[in-house]
Amino acid sequence: MRVVCLSGGVGGAKLARGLHDVLAPGELTVIGNVGDDLEVLGLHVSPDLDSILYALTSLNDEERGWGRGDETWRTLESAKAWGGEGWFLLGDLDLGLHLVRTQALRDGETLSAVTARLTERAGLATRLVPATDDPLRTQVVTPDGPFSFQEWFVARQHRDEVDQVLYEGAYAARPAAGVLDAIRRAELLVFAPSNPYVSIGPILAVDAIRATIAAQGVRCVAVSPLIGGRAVKGPLDRMLTRMSGGTTPAHVADCYKGLIDALVIDRADAPGEAPVPLVVTDTLMVDRDVARRLAETVLEATR
Amino acid sequence: MRVVCLSGGVGGAKLARGLHDVLAPGELTVIGNVGDDLEVLGLHVSPDLDSILYALTSLNDEERGWGRGDETWRTLESAKAWGGEGWFLLGDLDLGLHLVRTQALRDGETLSAVTARLTERAGLATRLVPATDDPLRTQVVTPDGPFSFQEWFVARQHRDEVDQVLYEGAYAARPAAGVLDAIRRAELLVFAPSNPYVSIGPILAVDAIRATIAAQGVRCVAVSPLIGGRAVKGPLDRMLTRMSGGTTPAHVADCYKGLIDALVIDRADAPGEAPVPLVVTDTLMVDRDVARRLAETVLEATR
Repeated sequence: MRVVCLSGGVGGAKLARGLHDVLAPGELTVIGNVGDDLEVLGLHVSPDLDSILYALTSLNDEERGWGRGDETWRTLESAKAWGGEGWFLLGDLDLGLHLVRTQALRDGETLSAVTARLTERAGLATRLVPATDDPLRTQVVTPDGPFSFQEWFVARQHRDEVDQVLYEGAYAARPAAGVLDAIRRAELLVFAPSNPYVSIGPILAVDAIRATIAAQGVRCVAVSPLIGGRAVKGPLDRMLTRMSGGTTPAHVADCYKGLIDALVIDRADAPGEAPVPLVVTDTLMVDRDVARRLAETVLEATR
Repeated sequence: MRVVCLSGGVGGAKLARGLHDVLAPGELTVIGNVGDDLEVLGLHVSPDLDSILYALTSLNDEERGWGRGDETWRTLESAKAWGGEGWFLLGDLDLGLHLVRTQALRDGETLSAVTARLTERAGLATRLVPATDDPLRTQVVTPDGPFSFQEWFVARQHRDEVDQVLYEGAYAARPAAGVLDAIRRAELLVFAPSNPYVSIGPILAVDAIRATIAAQGVRCVAVSPLIGGRAVKGPLDRMLTRMSGGTTPAHVADCYKGLIDALVIDRADAPGEAPVPLVVTDTLMVDRDVARRLAETVLEATR
């Protein structure tokens, strides 16, 4: 079954790996969020693409939830000692990827081309494609003013309430090569358990991607990132409460109005009501097996 | 005594540190070679400036002779695994400096400005100035054709004989801010025991620097990089033999014709003859104390 999964980092990456594990080689395409991308120490960093790539290649740190396992921080410490910025954590192994990608981008390669090269090099049959090669950056509007996503999320530790989420550059952003084709050829579309505002939202903010998904005849299933109305990690519950009025399955489903046919929720949120059918299961991916089982449930939910 | 020292990496950096140790704070200005500079993994690397900076700050690796002590290589290994170039060794700690400098250069700062910032940050009273902020790159012409310095030196392990050394960009290169002032105010000029062709040569290839040194009334002393007619490290003896006909003190002194008033040589090369007075001492800087003693000899040689 050809599956396309829209994903942010961390939780989304875990489900992407679950799908990768249970599908046949080559059946999965993951479309990754680039709204969080940033330049730090002069390097282009794509945190969500990296989380997905590291999860798919089992290079990820399972406990930390981002970055690489067995990581060290010597280059960053050295850069800080020479006056470099240190607010965004970049590990030594992680930096190897950023260096190679940044060099390719400066040489004129597109983000999708270099991402394809990296996944091929890792021997992955699963395809990983950024939503767009054009600059598209998530901004949050808070009572203290607007911030770029990473400034708010990392530097300010997402302490500010969010009144609005903007996708700078979305109006002009075109889907990266391969994105629309993958969606059109998909037999199932999955929205991973990522933050609808700042992870899936920036992907859907590319008009052609949203329109192609909406026009697709196949089923589209979202997995709720909430458990018992709370975010596993991050500020989503506060964002949903403030911007949508609550954290029930209906509030999550509303984020994807007109796009999804079913919502997978955790047992802790059942019974629930929503404008689409609910599928109840265990969604906390504590390990790779649970992620696999969740992926199987998502696939079965469509049959 | 205000001293200006022209230096390449490794041996030159050792004497620079010796001078730094024996002079009063602020008396020493080191003018560093940039002919070896290169871009690797998208980063600007100035190997000679770095060797001097690391030596002056005692961050250098004494045994290896280049790079930082207590170094690791995880970022480079990771970059190679992702398809990045690995022919030029960059350690994790070393990379921190390259990241900070490259970011500054891309932001429009000059090499001399960022170098000044780095030395200030390290608390150094000694000034380190690149010969020029303009692109000046050393090329060697060999029987197999011309090569950039690092391609020949590192990638081809300087196995090719050298027929000629070219300084690409030298005709247009202006001295970096502070270089000519430092030379004019100097009470002693020192050419460190670096390769005359590929370390000191590129500095003197900047016309205004050579002319200002030639016009200076104060003494100018070179320290021979040869011991017993052999290079301590690197291909200088082969280069001198092929391009100048021998490796005696006279052949070394000839490289600096019209510029130097004395040549410091090792006991292994004495007695020798040369067109300038020779000062005989131990020039193999096996440790910091020997470098200090050599520096003192250089200073005394001028009195």
